[in-house]
Amino acid sequence: MIKQKNKKPLKELPLGFVDRTEKELLVRDFIISKIKEVMIRYGFQYLETPSFEYSESIGKFLPDKERPDAGVFSFKDDKQWLSLRYDLTAPLARYVAKNFLEIPKPFKRYQLGTVWRNEKPGPGRFREFLQFDADFVGTRSLQADAELCIMISEILENCGLSKSEYVIKISSRKITEELFKKINLNDSEQKLTTLRALDKIDRLGWDGIKQLLGSGRKDKSGDFTKGANLNLKSIETIENELRKEKPLTEDLKYLLKIFKDYNFNNYETDPSIIRGLEYYTGIIFEVNLKFDVKNSKGQVIQFGSVGGGGRYDNLINNFGNYDTPATGISIGLDRLVYALMQKKEFKIKQTKPVVICIFDKSSMKDYINLQKMLRKNGISVEIYPGDGKLKKQMEYANKINSPAVILFGDNEIKSGKPTLRNLRTGKETKIEIKKLIDEIKKII
Amino acid sequence: MIKQKNKKPLKELPLGFVDRTEKELLVRDFIISKIKEVMIRYGFQYLETPSFEYSESIGKFLPDKERPDAGVFSFKDDKQWLSLRYDLTAPLARYVAKNFLEIPKPFKRYQLGTVWRNEKPGPGRFREFLQFDADFVGTRSLQADAELCIMISEILENCGLSKSEYVIKISSRKITEELFKKINLNDSEQKLTTLRALDKIDRLGWDGIKQLLGSGRKDKSGDFTKGANLNLKSIETIENELRKEKPLTEDLKYLLKIFKDYNFNNYETDPSIIRGLEYYTGIIFEVNLKFDVKNSKGQVIQFGSVGGGGRYDNLINNFGNYDTPATGISIGLDRLVYALMQKKEFKIKQTKPVVICIFDKSSMKDYINLQKMLRKNGISVEIYPGDGKLKKQMEYANKINSPAVILFGDNEIKSGKPTLRNLRTGKETKIEIKKLIDEIKKII
Repeated sequence: MIKQKNKKPLKELPLGFVDRTEKELLVRDFIISKIKEVMIRYGFQYLETPSFEYSESIGKFLPDKERPDAGVFSFKDDKQWLSLRYDLTAPLARYVAKNFLEIPKPFKRYQLGTVWRNEKPGPGRFREFLQFDADFVGTRSLQADAELCIMISEILENCGLSKSEYVIKISSRKITEELFKKINLNDSEQKLTTLRALDKIDRLGWDGIKQLLGSGRKDKSGDFTKGANLNLKSIETIENELRKEKPLTEDLKYLLKIFKDYNFNNYETDPSIIRGLEYYTGIIFEVNLKFDVKNSKGQVIQFGSVGGGGRYDNLINNFGNYDTPATGISIGLDRLVYALMQKKEFKIKQTKPVVICIFDKSSMKDYINLQKMLRKNGISVEIYPGDGKLKKQMEYANKINSPAVILFGDNEIKSGKPTLRNLRTGKETKIEIKKLIDEIKKII
Repeated sequence: MIKQKNKKPLKELPLGFVDRTEKELLVRDFIISKIKEVMIRYGFQYLETPSFEYSESIGKFLPDKERPDAGVFSFKDDKQWLSLRYDLTAPLARYVAKNFLEIPKPFKRYQLGTVWRNEKPGPGRFREFLQFDADFVGTRSLQADAELCIMISEILENCGLSKSEYVIKISSRKITEELFKKINLNDSEQKLTTLRALDKIDRLGWDGIKQLLGSGRKDKSGDFTKGANLNLKSIETIENELRKEKPLTEDLKYLLKIFKDYNFNNYETDPSIIRGLEYYTGIIFEVNLKFDVKNSKGQVIQFGSVGGGGRYDNLINNFGNYDTPATGISIGLDRLVYALMQKKEFKIKQTKPVVICIFDKSSMKDYINLQKMLRKNGISVEIYPGDGKLKKQMEYANKINSPAVILFGDNEIKSGKPTLRNLRTGKETKIEIKKLIDEIKKII
């Protein structure tokens, strides 16, 4: 074969990317199965769009306008630029435009998929994450927005959370729209910068926000973020309006009425909820977890949002003259998994194989028959997969957390009674092959 | 909100990428669930590596050396190049090197994940596909290679295939190694070009292969592929040796003995099996489907391989001095799904919601209560999610293939007896709410 050059390749991962191991993946699979159950009951269609889209199709709605070139991963193809999707909403809009004549109206779809953000990586800041999205396309009915909030609550409760452990915070972009009218803010770039600033309230507090609403803010690392350049009076008006108890907008009032019909009360109205994306036009919501979560250093942190969404009545119309109002929700599955894994009550069974030890390669057929019989009965089992001696085999079985090993030496084969050694207790039992299944099922 | 520029974004997908809809995704989910069942019984660990790796870590084992720059999607990061993985084996090698001290030895892992190839897209040629991989790392035992063949057979049979519908073709790189010795071929690049040429035998036949073994070959589109530049005598020797019935190599003989112990006979030895990747060192195998499959034009095609693999004893050692022989299998899930969906016997249930029609928004609470009760009983149901009149609602229900609609007008609400209209038969039944569940279960 080809000899590689002498230089050894890097064995590290690029920043912002991680390997995920079994326990996390099993918790994720569990959550995904719960999501799918709910999606079927709620009548959503399953869809999958590809990782890549033409940059042009999704590029105009970049989530991070502060770094417009660096927000996504893009490639020059033969003639055009391709980008890895940064969310599942922009590709949905493209899908709806492409298949407008064929899809039912309204169109309810859900999708699970990886999204990528080419942001500056930092601690706990990933550049790839798994998202779950559900959307109603082609309806102005606020019943749809309400159902999204109720549906995500049902998913969280199906995953084992109680009502006190999460809350849906709701608001409306109409609040900020009214506010912009009041302070006579019309410039669209300035509006967007203002929304982005307000979205950071949890992290920066009002002092930081006010800098971002003014000339700008320098963060701890020295990086400077340009502000919205509002005047002092406008900034004061914004703070006063968003901090005080306000009468609800019409859309929020109607949403709350539907919640009441559903007997759903695990929500809070909160005008400080903004959401960073520019395409929202009405109701917006955020899913917040309320139980303690620790970061990688063991410190209890305010975990905050695992997702959110809202109404985006104009996004799809960018592709043409479709009258296609829509509303949707996105959940960050990796974050949800991370939080749920910290709950003690939340347990997932990791099945580890019973190991059949190899005493003598000439008895392989006996080991194979035993393995075959056990597997046929649904038991996770393997013949030791390596070349080592018995001591190494026992080390291996312990290392993989095997519940038991089967010792099937010459005498045991002759008598038809393998020895089962329980690795939790150390107890050994000589046992007939046909009783082995029941005995193993007792200890796994 | 921000006004978009007037130019409409593209609503098409880049070549080589596709949207996938519900039926295909459900078949895929079914296959994945079968795979996971088998993986647990066989004692493989579940792992997930990220989409991106440093190009340097995986770049030296590119599958398509003919276009070394174009084979993968790569980005310049701050300092280094990142690439989207083109297979799951190179990232596994990186993972093993990175975590060498912590992993069990041997290490058995499986992974499901998307891989990307930045190849010239063509009909039926995709640039992103979903793969399933299982590998044994850190063992020279051919028991491992045998188990991979038997395991994939079990997966295929669990998916509903009979023994006559697939076959595992096996060979060994030792055959080509011996052949290279015989014709005195030592240059590693020339060897690789020869292997790549031989791998195309199914598509090009011996005439095409002989051109590729010589100076090169021009394809239908006029593209020229450089050949291995072997002399005429060497080419003749290769053809004679690979076409004739040959005595088996030692590794194949031993593999066949293990197959016999397993009572596994759904294989064929076939020296023309080569596999395109350069890193194989011993046993290689290919999973072939034998039933008729039609292409998108309705023509019956020779579908061929849905995956394969083999032993790669030196790949991980490239990262350092690990003594880590390994063997693995890769299955192309999209191709497998495509083939299985053409089998008539293969059916997946697509659940579509019963639609509760909206007569009057003031009765919404009654609709909601009905929907809640039905969902609680596991029935897929939705209140019509749009704003249209009854005619539109019925069109919608038909469009989504709903099994039934529930008509719950004023009179029905008063009498407590909604009307259930079966959309398959057109039959209507007035029925008490508490009997509704059973009635719906009969027709879905």
